[in-house]
Amino acid sequence: MSTPLRVTVWGENVHEQKHPVVAKLYPKGMHETIAEGLRELGGVEVRTATLDQPEHGLTEAVLDATDVLTWWGHAAHGQVEDKIVDRVQKRVLEGMGLIVLHSGHYAKIFKRLLGTTCSLTWREAGEKERLWVCNPGHPIAQGIDKYFEIPNEEMYGEPFAIPTPDELVFISWFQGGEVFRSGATWKRGNGKIFYFRPGHETYPTYHQKEVRRVIHNGVFWARPEGTRWIDTCPNVPIDKAAEKFTAQGESLHKPGEAGYR
Amino acid sequence: MSTPLRVTVWGENVHEQKHPVVAKLYPKGMHETIAEGLRELGGVEVRTATLDQPEHGLTEAVLDATDVLTWWGHAAHGQVEDKIVDRVQKRVLEGMGLIVLHSGHYAKIFKRLLGTTCSLTWREAGEKERLWVCNPGHPIAQGIDKYFEIPNEEMYGEPFAIPTPDELVFISWFQGGEVFRSGATWKRGNGKIFYFRPGHETYPTYHQKEVRRVIHNGVFWARPEGTRWIDTCPNVPIDKAAEKFTAQGESLHKPGEAGYR
Amino acid sequence: MSTPLRVTVWGENVHEQKHPVVAKLYPKGMHETIAEGLRELGGVEVRTATLDQPEHGLTEAVLDATDVLTWWGHAAHGQVEDKIVDRVQKRVLEGMGLIVLHSGHYAKIFKRLLGTTCSLTWREAGEKERLWVCNPGHPIAQGIDKYFEIPNEEMYGEPFAIPTPDELVFISWFQGGEVFRSGATWKRGNGKIFYFRPGHETYPTYHQKEVRRVIHNGVFWARPEGTRWIDTCPNVPIDKAAEKFTAQGESLHKPGEAGYR
Amino acid sequence: MSTPLRVTVWGENVHEQKHPVVAKLYPKGMHETIAEGLRELGGVEVRTATLDQPEHGLTEAVLDATDVLTWWGHAAHGQVEDKIVDRVQKRVLEGMGLIVLHSGHYAKIFKRLLGTTCSLTWREAGEKERLWVCNPGHPIAQGIDKYFEIPNEEMYGEPFAIPTPDELVFISWFQGGEVFRSGATWKRGNGKIFYFRPGHETYPTYHQKEVRRVIHNGVFWARPEGTRWIDTCPNVPIDKAAEKFTAQGESLHKPGEAGYR
Repeated sequence: MSTPLRVTVWGENVHEQKHPVVAKLYPKGMHETIAEGLRELGGVEVRTATLDQPEHGLTEAVLDATDVLTWWGHAAHGQVEDKIVDRVQKRVLEGMGLIVLHSGHYAKIFKRLLGTTCSLTWREAGEKERLWVCNPGHPIAQGIDKYFEIPNEEMYGEPFAIPTPDELVFISWFQGGEVFRSGATWKRGNGKIFYFRPGHETYPTYHQKEVRRVIHNGVFWARPEGTRWIDTCPNVPIDKAAEKFTAQGESLHKPGEAGYR
Repeated sequence: MSTPLRVTVWGENVHEQKHPVVAKLYPKGMHETIAEGLRELGGVEVRTATLDQPEHGLTEAVLDATDVLTWWGHAAHGQVEDKIVDRVQKRVLEGMGLIVLHSGHYAKIFKRLLGTTCSLTWREAGEKERLWVCNPGHPIAQGIDKYFEIPNEEMYGEPFAIPTPDELVFISWFQGGEVFRSGATWKRGNGKIFYFRPGHETYPTYHQKEVRRVIHNGVFWARPEGTRWIDTCPNVPIDKAAEKFTAQGESLHKPGEAGYR
Repeated sequence: MSTPLRVTVWGENVHEQKHPVVAKLYPKGMHETIAEGLRELGGVEVRTATLDQPEHGLTEAVLDATDVLTWWGHAAHGQVEDKIVDRVQKRVLEGMGLIVLHSGHYAKIFKRLLGTTCSLTWREAGEKERLWVCNPGHPIAQGIDKYFEIPNEEMYGEPFAIPTPDELVFISWFQGGEVFRSGATWKRGNGKIFYFRPGHETYPTYHQKEVRRVIHNGVFWARPEGTRWIDTCPNVPIDKAAEKFTAQGESLHKPGEAGYR
Repeated sequence: MSTPLRVTVWGENVHEQKHPVVAKLYPKGMHETIAEGLRELGGVEVRTATLDQPEHGLTEAVLDATDVLTWWGHAAHGQVEDKIVDRVQKRVLEGMGLIVLHSGHYAKIFKRLLGTTCSLTWREAGEKERLWVCNPGHPIAQGIDKYFEIPNEEMYGEPFAIPTPDELVFISWFQGGEVFRSGATWKRGNGKIFYFRPGHETYPTYHQKEVRRVIHNGVFWARPEGTRWIDTCPNVPIDKAAEKFTAQGESLHKPGEAGYR
């Protein structure tokens, strides 16, 4: 593929400013570390955007020029403006890929696209996580062995309140005894969505090579494939119908009038 | 089943008050005709609720006592309060069935649960619609022959901007040359959702016996089956973990503290 | 529900005759213990059938009178006659429920219905298995807490080579570090299929109350719901078409002739 | 993409030899016309294979060098040897794409991968078919307008006895009043499967440009994306387990012994 994939890495960038532990692990912000991991593996043109920027850094122009968006948020989901969520949702339905990371399970955009609470159980105790590959041939699992381990992570456990994924790529085993669907995909409109569990801010997860590899695989898997389709609920007047017939019965709308929304 | 199924029929009840054609077909409102069709086939205890009532007739108490909710709206989707949509969504995820009818494709609750625009193409010319059964053994298709026809209906055509249904029960053929996925099901949380296309307000569709039969089948198919589960994103502290281990690494949360939302 | 559900429990009954360990745990055969567990919880009329019987105990008459079939096999999958597999598949497509247990993942009928290899990884070391409920409101999980444990079981690990399940009810955590999709459902034709992992013959798994409860829930979940539909690829001659038109172009078939198969 | 996609077009090549009408439309065989359509649009390296060749032209070497296989058959499904079907199924599960055309709905390989009867209703009367695009942004629909028409085709009608498709790309409207899911996709293992309805042998369907375009789109959509994974049900002995523990309980297998199949 000759033209690089255009990726926008969105980060909340809140805890990096407040918690010394997080600031030390991610001195330029988690978004910059995630971006660095993508650049390292190549084939991408990466920009970053954060909550504190105007329009959270996600202007129409930025989204227009984005093939795949990655999303990490945690403490400030409620501060993301609904009009920006509307805009991101619209672009996903048109075909932009979306990678939702870790605590992004509670991001407005994720709940909006899936329609469920996206709830789970959790524990912050730095335990070992082992991510098993459910389908070794899947593009998102390329370069990963049967499993990989993260020495210290927050635990997320089932039940994970999501609609059935189209495909499951990873399931996690936790030292404390839980399991979790850690890599799952859906399609909404023409947009491909990949949820990837790891990435608690008090651990160096986004510096780990397997995690970087999966996110890199993910953005390529989620790239737009078809044309950008904008649906508009168009009226097809009787004289434009494929088969000719005579109108009958009563009507609410006058010819050419728009429908209700 | 000895105890009757508790169904709430929600109707927008706007065009019935404004358009003489609609008022003549549905003198007590479309919701009363839909309710009558359900009662006629039996086994149900039906109440109705409308937009103009306090809380749109959908109080906590009403929803608590509802097994399956049917939804018809068209001109006033935007007037449905978001807090009521939140409440209905919560009950669907807990297990309440939802039957979305015709122009309800643009209802906030339907778009909320599916995550897409739910757009389609349309024409109001009273043409013939023929609904084919895609799976004759499906509970929703019981009592329906290979197909049934509606002499005059509004046309809805593909593309219908929905996530892939779990099951497709009906596909429509229209006189003007279009096709449409007219009976489709999804599950969100523990709630079963059935979208059923027919029912434009200027035609006597909800008086037709096959339409009544399908809606009756639909409410029974969508009845809750398991227990009512309310998910809460619970913390599982380390001393409650199934496997014993020692905490390690840094933390954001103090023991017992709630997570972010 | 007043009439009892008619369940046939199929067991291979080979290792019970050969291995003293298995014979001691299941003196009347595993099938009788599974049947006993179903009867104990009630509402069912259970018969058993085994490999060594004529037609493996699965005659047309038996299958006709079966609402849900459970299947356990391990050492003798290859001895199950193809014509019996054809017959069981036909009944599942018509609406009979099917519960596939443990090593039944390699049964001909399971691979036939799913279309994949149904391969997995395994280890026989009597380790602890913990089955987590992925959806606490699901009918198959009723009466089960957040999880239940089996003290000694064979390990089955991912990748499990199956098509994406319609719903995932359980995921297992194993002491040796693996995970597995232990409770999964699909629909083929009108038949509901539930795969449930536990049940290695050298452990007393089918005597455990949670396992019995899940299988009991499973047969009720998998019961037939609609009518029995037998598909036949029928020809619809032009004079029976819903819309009148004149035949044109060339034909292979004479009027009324059957199609190729 | 610089290296061409390697496509094998399989044709039964029976009616072309027997029916003058078919021979006239497809003088070199339908497979050659389908291959020509793919070559015309480029980016592919196409070979053909037919029933009458040794191993039906589908040797291990041919399949090893095939990225996507297209399949047309009608009169001689029963003559395809089971061992060749096994071989094709294995390659699909490993990642080879499969495009099943028209009467291939009854091909052994299609029924094998889907697990259902794949039955439908039909009429051979040369009626008009209009294929509607259900998702204009889908890669398989690129270059196709809202719909396209085929002036003369055999009718295939619902119910089509298939498992729910992952995605629906086309639905057909027929002059005689039927509808059909004409473009549907599934994934089995790592193989992508696309069923495309048109192509009765007595009409010049495979000469039509829209049909050629869809098949060309289809082979690119179905191309393998990940690595070729061969699943083997491997044993993971206790000393290779990720977590250390002590074996307990009874065993059937001695260390290192293979499992049953």
